[in-house]
Amino acid sequence: MDYEAYFAERLDALKREGNYRVFADLERKVGAFPRAANHADGEVRDITIWCSNDYLGMGMHPEVRGAMCDAINASGAGAGGTRNISGTTHYHVLLEDELASWHGKEAALTFTSGYVANLTTLMTLGAQIPDVVLFSDELNHNSMIEGIRHSRAAKKIWKHNDVEHLAKLLAEYPKDHPKVVIFESVYSMDGDIAPLDEIVSCAEEYGAMTFLDEVHAVGMYGTRGSGVAERDGVAHRIDIIQGTMGKAIGVVGGYIAGSARMVDFVRSFGAGFIFTTSLPPAVAAGARASVRWLKEHDEVRVRHQERAATAKRRLLERGIPVMPSVSHIVPVLVGDATLCKQASDLLLTRHAIYVQPINYPTVPKGTERLRITPTPLHDDAAMDHLVEALCDVWQTLGIQRVQQAAE
Amino acid sequence: MDYEAYFAERLDALKREGNYRVFADLERKVGAFPRAANHADGEVRDITIWCSNDYLGMGMHPEVRGAMCDAINASGAGAGGTRNISGTTHYHVLLEDELASWHGKEAALTFTSGYVANLTTLMTLGAQIPDVVLFSDELNHNSMIEGIRHSRAAKKIWKHNDVEHLAKLLAEYPKDHPKVVIFESVYSMDGDIAPLDEIVSCAEEYGAMTFLDEVHAVGMYGTRGSGVAERDGVAHRIDIIQGTMGKAIGVVGGYIAGSARMVDFVRSFGAGFIFTTSLPPAVAAGARASVRWLKEHDEVRVRHQERAATAKRRLLERGIPVMPSVSHIVPVLVGDATLCKQASDLLLTRHAIYVQPINYPTVPKGTERLRITPTPLHDDAAMDHLVEALCDVWQTLGIQRVQQAAE
Ligand SMILES: Cc1ncc(COP(=O)(O)O)c(C=O)c1O
Ligand SMILES: Cc1ncc(COP(=O)(O)O)c(C=O)c1O
Repeated sequence: MDYEAYFAERLDALKREGNYRVFADLERKVGAFPRAANHADGEVRDITIWCSNDYLGMGMHPEVRGAMCDAINASGAGAGGTRNISGTTHYHVLLEDELASWHGKEAALTFTSGYVANLTTLMTLGAQIPDVVLFSDELNHNSMIEGIRHSRAAKKIWKHNDVEHLAKLLAEYPKDHPKVVIFESVYSMDGDIAPLDEIVSCAEEYGAMTFLDEVHAVGMYGTRGSGVAERDGVAHRIDIIQGTMGKAIGVVGGYIAGSARMVDFVRSFGAGFIFTTSLPPAVAAGARASVRWLKEHDEVRVRHQERAATAKRRLLERGIPVMPSVSHIVPVLVGDATLCKQASDLLLTRHAIYVQPINYPTVPKGTERLRITPTPLHDDAAMDHLVEALCDVWQTLGIQRVQQAAE
Repeated sequence: MDYEAYFAERLDALKREGNYRVFADLERKVGAFPRAANHADGEVRDITIWCSNDYLGMGMHPEVRGAMCDAINASGAGAGGTRNISGTTHYHVLLEDELASWHGKEAALTFTSGYVANLTTLMTLGAQIPDVVLFSDELNHNSMIEGIRHSRAAKKIWKHNDVEHLAKLLAEYPKDHPKVVIFESVYSMDGDIAPLDEIVSCAEEYGAMTFLDEVHAVGMYGTRGSGVAERDGVAHRIDIIQGTMGKAIGVVGGYIAGSARMVDFVRSFGAGFIFTTSLPPAVAAGARASVRWLKEHDEVRVRHQERAATAKRRLLERGIPVMPSVSHIVPVLVGDATLCKQASDLLLTRHAIYVQPINYPTVPKGTERLRITPTPLHDDAAMDHLVEALCDVWQTLGIQRVQQAAE
């Protein structure tokens, strides 16, 4: 077989479909966030990032940066081993304590990423609990889908956020048959939020464990910022809360929180946890400093929600098709892969605004979109600039506006 | 089902077998490596680490630490997104260039870990190349096994480092049938090294791509330190070289290097690459500084090999059963899970030496061992101390010595 020719052919097909991804080469700047330098074709330009998942700008926070540099200079760059073989540092222990207490749980366990946390935990539960059935929301993130698939456990897909459908599927098994209900709080491409209370009640009724991905909620919801489960008062009823330290917390890494035994079980049997170098002490120190700050500063969450609501309102006023979203995510529908890429390119070249096009496989074909994430650090001037730029791009490319809105 | 009771039962079974893992809580110290603080039961003691995978102490290196802190203070704590969505920073671009050139390849791609690099690359090749057959050395690391398994491609397991067996399996398919031969250079639990030239020749003969895990070799073999493939002069004949930045490089993260098209293919189709927050800029900066330093300092590799050879010789002289190893790894056979844990505990409590017991599932039952990794920073005094301590522990616990050696 000519492997190179095969790779080229597959890449060409992506290009023809408009789904070939070109990464923007960025240099974020402490003190200037959300502005950054964009390197392209040997040139460097100043741009504004409007699609960061550093949702609150915590990656720039002096306490987070300070904690990281202190850890590097006290303890070194890396951990030097897997968690079991010389790679558990005191920074990991302190971080796991902090995360457990944040979520009101007995214990927490960190992973190299939120992706690996989902993959490993679901794979471990699915493969190790005899006869378990995994019930997965149809819009769950790839990391959960892969964990479920890889576990080879029986799975049932329930319609997105549809508790009646979930109940129907759960009812097919006796109450004492092992089951896990797997879902997210904030779905990050649409910005909708799951009805946690109803889902948890349903799971309780049918004797299922619950696994909740709060990746796009930790740091941002609830008075102490631990997520939608906190906001909705149901955290204590959820068996496994999963989160990332790479988005609102501003660093990198993932975790689960829950009962001491469940955590010990995943710690002891999860291959993706066991067989990998642990996170650098500095990452643990930075994430811990970030969580401690976030717990105490609800005002940053209030400001964050206000910025997102303002962006949605102002864009809709101009007929830009903001998709319905009850969260901090502002998705704007384009509906075509090539057009979406063009819109993103034009925003960057003409307006120095960076919003990556979101195409298949991240979202279904035909729902290609620009996914805008206003942070507390996007001020009114930046917002004015965004609104005018989008109007210009919509005009130039002839993209569909919202019918009912007047320009 | 009573989930908690089930978890407890499984954990109890591990404890009964002696396979329950207790992590040592460590605080590495810049300037004192390989010494560290060990937190246990509310007390803190000074110990010497003898099982770190920071094989060369690069995690402590001032240039690595400096590059990391500079990046944190210039660009922030985290990357703020997936590689596609605002998470490609200029630091990633520079690191990938550096890694590609180190291995003499057109391109390189970084992942959150070596684990994810293996899992994602093999899963992508296995799932995306129609009818591909994956040929895997029987002692390959869990990350490769999971990638192969998860891809659901046809697989053939060849006997460890047995090129004749590999050839026999490859010959079962026509030459133009797609195939990938998957193996490691240094097998880290035994310390043996694969016959790269023979394996590559065999793969070439049968029209197979080659995938080589150099996780325990990058930084440590070859005059410029890029691994055993460099040392053996075969790097240009290997299609995919995979490595980690978490061991000899001293930071965290993983990568592959190879042709531009192959890398672009994995970049475009690898779920474990696409759907996860990218590494912090500081990690990329630290890893790059480390690689640049390692390229120029072959003397650290000479010293490393001398330390390992000295440890092996001195332990064998005292009848301590060092397993045959041609690399920097010094595995010492205990052969029983409980005894192995006891030996490790006694080393720590009586001699302030930390060597984690290596038990199942990391190694087969009955081959439980202490895996010692001398670094260039373990001096003669530390070595004296290690030898005496192991002799005392072997004596105290009545562990088998090497027959032919005189005490
Ligand atoms: C819902 C969801 N879960 C998990 C992840 C993975 O988390 P991480 O980026 O920390 O790997 C992501 C995105 O990256 C996500 O969107
Ligand atoms: C052979 C081998 N490959 C891959 C890995 C994973 O690399 P990382 O620690 O960077 O995840 C390891 C160990 O951790 C390993 O021993």
